[in-house]
Amino acid sequence: MSEAFIGIDFGGSNTKAGLFDENIDLLGKDSIPTDSDSGPANVVKRIGRQCRGLIEKFGFSNEDIAAIGIGTPGPADYPNGIVIKSANMPNFKNTPLRDMIAAELGAPAVLENDANVACWGEFTEGAGKDISDMVFFTLGTGIGGGIVTQGRLLTGSDYNAAELGHIIIHPDGRLCGCGQKGCVEAYASATWTAARATEAIETGAESSLKKVLQEKGEITCKDVYEHLAKGDELAKKITDETAKALALVCINMLHTTEPSRIVFAGGMIAAGDALLDRIKHYFNEQIWTLKKLWKR
Amino acid sequence: MSEAFIGIDFGGSNTKAGLFDENIDLLGKDSIPTDSDSGPANVVKRIGRQCRGLIEKFGFSNEDIAAIGIGTPGPADYPNGIVIKSANMPNFKNTPLRDMIAAELGAPAVLENDANVACWGEFTEGAGKDISDMVFFTLGTGIGGGIVTQGRLLTGSDYNAAELGHIIIHPDGRLCGCGQKGCVEAYASATWTAARATEAIETGAESSLKKVLQEKGEITCKDVYEHLAKGDELAKKITDETAKALALVCINMLHTTEPSRIVFAGGMIAAGDALLDRIKHYFNEQIWTLKKLWKR
Repeated sequence: MSEAFIGIDFGGSNTKAGLFDENIDLLGKDSIPTDSDSGPANVVKRIGRQCRGLIEKFGFSNEDIAAIGIGTPGPADYPNGIVIKSANMPNFKNTPLRDMIAAELGAPAVLENDANVACWGEFTEGAGKDISDMVFFTLGTGIGGGIVTQGRLLTGSDYNAAELGHIIIHPDGRLCGCGQKGCVEAYASATWTAARATEAIETGAESSLKKVLQEKGEITCKDVYEHLAKGDELAKKITDETAKALALVCINMLHTTEPSRIVFAGGMIAAGDALLDRIKHYFNEQIWTLKKLWKR
Repeated sequence: MSEAFIGIDFGGSNTKAGLFDENIDLLGKDSIPTDSDSGPANVVKRIGRQCRGLIEKFGFSNEDIAAIGIGTPGPADYPNGIVIKSANMPNFKNTPLRDMIAAELGAPAVLENDANVACWGEFTEGAGKDISDMVFFTLGTGIGGGIVTQGRLLTGSDYNAAELGHIIIHPDGRLCGCGQKGCVEAYASATWTAARATEAIETGAESSLKKVLQEKGEITCKDVYEHLAKGDELAKKITDETAKALALVCINMLHTTEPSRIVFAGGMIAAGDALLDRIKHYFNEQIWTLKKLWKR
């Protein structure tokens, strides 16, 4: 049997695994809850089972796996494959994730920033393949980023460049999981979009989301966008705030690396034009008048 | 006679010219008020006189000038040498500055972003010559920026990257000359440092600067730092705000291009450690706890 490759997207909520053939074409994929609270050893065992499931399903054996690529949220010690500390996974501290997964699956592994690898994928094969300067955001449990300038992935002096979720947009604002106040992530991530809606209802705001909170005991970001589609005023307000926060970061990135395109990815883009059109609106409203730069 | 080169730093307040020999060693320099209000044609004539003064002083003739390099505030159409619109020089609109100066002096000229050329100079010969990832700020009438990543100057998709003075740090904050609200320039530039002090006094704040305002009719940034050195409380408050604004942008740059060093230049650095120590204080206070990154 020929060789195969495994790609793992290790996230705060879910861990996705993909099996690729020798041409790096996707054969199959699978998603499981990460369950990071259960601790690194347990999480790695479950990822092992997940990957072996794919390997067997497509008729490979463990020995066929030539390499494993792992994307994980930053900051991390990527050259040594170690998750130092994570804003969304408090049980992961100085965890040698790369070597643990390599040992579990018996194949060499590489650890890279999750948003960087996603950015590079979009740049080489997707939304950025016709340009040379791109900024990339993943909108999910947290907000990740990737930057390509003059055709190269920007890695920074210590492999933690493009932590765009932790750009501060509101000095002395909401406390982010990273310890800073006012990060864009603390306003515009899926987690915080839901949290802001919950907060508003708990402090008396009227909304069709109130029933969701009462029945399920929580509101998700998906709920917010579903009720936005139905015309709920609170969902509109929450989405406007999310869009304004993202527009501010887009403006700041334009004044920093000056991309010719900004790409959004991650679970939250399911909100579609309802979110994207608002981001464009606030971007155009707030961008300098010296030069109009939003082209799409 | 051998050939010589001219470097021009075209600024909102002053225009500096330098004459260099064939080894690009500085022979002499000169500074004149730009007087941008008098209009482009007049300004270029005065720059012509300034440069001819240097040329003659060092025994050269016009024919010896091999090339002219001009640094000018952005945004501009650098490949075509045109100042499109300037936040601090409203009389310069679609001004073909490069060709006007080339014609005035009879030598080929190149236009580049002023902060970018200053950044590249520091990177190759000054504060950044031992590193490969640097962020550079010029603190003057406005705030300019330059970024070097992996040893290369970051120019962006349209030659206007690193307009770091126009990073928004206070949404819906002070109106900047660029048309945006809440730019770091609208808090931390020399102009705005002086303006904030004036505003505070005009609205009743007690300060030893009050006498300066009464006697001279205005307060300059230099006055603020002089009174800071003498212990004036308002000058301290104004400087704290300036430092906090700059610290925020430093944090945001760390999460963007992750430099291993941040370099400050421009007239305002005459404030020395009184300003730098405050920037470091607020940086360390506000930076994420995931990884401590300020090393100097």
